[in-house]
Amino acid sequence: MDKARLESFSDGVFGFAITLLVLGVQVPVLKTVNDTELRAGLLQCLSQLVPYVTSFATIGIIWLNHHAMFSSVERVEHTTLSLNLFLLLVVTFIPYPTAVLSRYGALPSSASLYGCALTLLGSAYSLLWMHLVRRKLTSAAAHPRLNRRRLQRNLAGTVMYPLGSVIALRFPHISIAIYALVASFYFVPSPVQYYDCKDSQ
Amino acid sequence: MDKARLESFSDGVFGFAITLLVLGVQVPVLKTVNDTELRAGLLQCLSQLVPYVTSFATIGIIWLNHHAMFSSVERVEHTTLSLNLFLLLVVTFIPYPTAVLSRYGALPSSASLYGCALTLLGSAYSLLWMHLVRRKLTSAAAHPRLNRRRLQRNLAGTVMYPLGSVIALRFPHISIAIYALVASFYFVPSPVQYYDCKDSQ
Amino acid sequence: MDKARLESFSDGVFGFAITLLVLGVQVPVLKTVNDTELRAGLLQCLSQLVPYVTSFATIGIIWLNHHAMFSSVERVEHTTLSLNLFLLLVVTFIPYPTAVLSRYGALPSSASLYGCALTLLGSAYSLLWMHLVRRKLTSAAAHPRLNRRRLQRNLAGTVMYPLGSVIALRFPHISIAIYALVASFYFVPSPVQYYDCKDSQ
Amino acid sequence: MDKARLESFSDGVFGFAITLLVLGVQVPVLKTVNDTELRAGLLQCLSQLVPYVTSFATIGIIWLNHHAMFSSVERVEHTTLSLNLFLLLVVTFIPYPTAVLSRYGALPSSASLYGCALTLLGSAYSLLWMHLVRRKLTSAAAHPRLNRRRLQRNLAGTVMYPLGSVIALRFPHISIAIYALVASFYFVPSPVQYYDCKDSQ
Repeated sequence: MDKARLESFSDGVFGFAITLLVLGVQVPVLKTVNDTELRAGLLQCLSQLVPYVTSFATIGIIWLNHHAMFSSVERVEHTTLSLNLFLLLVVTFIPYPTAVLSRYGALPSSASLYGCALTLLGSAYSLLWMHLVRRKLTSAAAHPRLNRRRLQRNLAGTVMYPLGSVIALRFPHISIAIYALVASFYFVPSPVQYYDCKDSQ
Repeated sequence: MDKARLESFSDGVFGFAITLLVLGVQVPVLKTVNDTELRAGLLQCLSQLVPYVTSFATIGIIWLNHHAMFSSVERVEHTTLSLNLFLLLVVTFIPYPTAVLSRYGALPSSASLYGCALTLLGSAYSLLWMHLVRRKLTSAAAHPRLNRRRLQRNLAGTVMYPLGSVIALRFPHISIAIYALVASFYFVPSPVQYYDCKDSQ
Repeated sequence: MDKARLESFSDGVFGFAITLLVLGVQVPVLKTVNDTELRAGLLQCLSQLVPYVTSFATIGIIWLNHHAMFSSVERVEHTTLSLNLFLLLVVTFIPYPTAVLSRYGALPSSASLYGCALTLLGSAYSLLWMHLVRRKLTSAAAHPRLNRRRLQRNLAGTVMYPLGSVIALRFPHISIAIYALVASFYFVPSPVQYYDCKDSQ
Repeated sequence: MDKARLESFSDGVFGFAITLLVLGVQVPVLKTVNDTELRAGLLQCLSQLVPYVTSFATIGIIWLNHHAMFSSVERVEHTTLSLNLFLLLVVTFIPYPTAVLSRYGALPSSASLYGCALTLLGSAYSLLWMHLVRRKLTSAAAHPRLNRRRLQRNLAGTVMYPLGSVIALRFPHISIAIYALVASFYFVPSPVQYYDCKDSQ
């Protein structure tokens, strides 16, 4: 099994899923077409861009990490392929809860569904990573300290997403803030990554 | 004709088709927007995720096999290109019956249409494979025992899909279960594949 | 300018446009959900698959030819890039007339619009090809006899598409048959291509 | 971090976004299906192709420049990745204002929203470019004169887009003409690019 083709297929799915997100942003439906109506409709639609940007950032981060993960993978076998397909299944599903959240705003069920989807995304990613480390399919398996730090970092999402899903049932707006914050948190470069670069060179 | 570009084009089409599936999952349409309505609407929509996951898994498997198939192909000629385009035509069509099945649930005609599409998918794949073996365009043509086992394995789908399409006319829910089971069956690694790997090394 | 990246970008756009076609096939809208209604709705929708398959085949052929064309291109400059972008613009537009034709059937205006789009597609392709030959940017420019035969072959579409667009105004069903026939015509391998292969080896 | 995979992911996103634009062109909705109605509906829809073509050309140009930009980039670090993701976020958003403009025509708010999106696109691109030059991550950083010319060229968009967004509030049709003109302006090859090619060879 060729690692390059797995990566290029995954890249395609990531890129496509990230682009489909925009279809969830509603074009306002007007009864009478005039500028006042349209401005009001657009303001309402655009005030719901938060889930769009959050999903974009979250898939973008998973893609970056997926990339980093596979750069140290040495061979690809059946279970890796299956777990990777499962991760892609969840990635391609993300546009759905994003569209629901954009359309109906932060209600308990839409915010909670969104949090559950992100939880599933984080879990699918962690499953793949744990499989690679446990089966020593990645050269990174030789750096237990680094892996622990990475795990701690991943923990943020792994804990925050289900927490957000529960909070959403009472305070949906707060849960949305949590999801957005987790996404921005991952954009801050971590010292772990620099260590990692040095080690791998 | 460059094999690499055929593969990358096919990868792209597989990846796009697999991602488009999510557009078939309905965002609930509410008359009055409140959380009770939305929860009910979402539960109804999400209970129909089975065709989404089944189609994802089925296209995913075809992609994995397409990949394995072409890794042993040595040259690409006109008929292979045409048969490959036909396979891609069927692959890109799959989101349609999936959307119909998601939208209207397991009715005889939706479940039967879905089964017919999967039958066509299996046939298109088998046609391509048989052409490659008969014309000795693949190095795998030299392993008749392996090919027989592979054929037996493919037979599962080749028989089960049309069978499901017929059963669907009376018991649509059972046919859906059959399609989902065939997809999971292919995720179990077979001893044939390992033999194959050893042979090709 | 890197030829490989132009090809991979073009491949992506071709693959994506070809996959988007399926969104033009209508999921039937039912007033009351039952199997009789759905069967009738599906039969009506599926009877309009002809434009879907024709567009798929036509874009597929243009992609195959685009590929063959660029395999002999030696360098890529500004005009080539612009003409290639124009070709991609027309390719990505094809899903629109296809959806119109699928939705409203073979009416004079839908069949004529479709023919105009195919005419534009053929012209954009010919423009790119003529530019490459005239500026001697392709090694194929050294085979004038081959180029003449290719031109004659391209002429089929270049003449039939506008002809179909005019016929459509009176006999829309006949024009659809013409578009479909032109697509199948290109799937028959021509002796020219084999000459070409021998020459380039 | 592998530059090639960043490029291929970006190519994918550019290609998907450019193809999704077509979904913004409305299939006419008819009350009674006949050819007169359809012709009228199509003429109305097709008269709004201008935003489609403008967005296609604008994303196409950004893609060409993105490509030229990264060909001289020597290494990719965290900030580059983040800024590139931000650029892709804006690129994937473009289909939304394009669809609004296609659907409701040149009203002050639709034309202004479109101009704001193009302004954001130009800014995201300039931000990425300025980061690469300032941090000396590109070999082009060594050509200050070239960079100044490029900057002047970019300035056209950087100034015209926000200007158009303001003009749109009173004269929406004029602002659309401005956006379309800026796109065509960039298709005229500049002497700067040729200098650049010579230098880099």
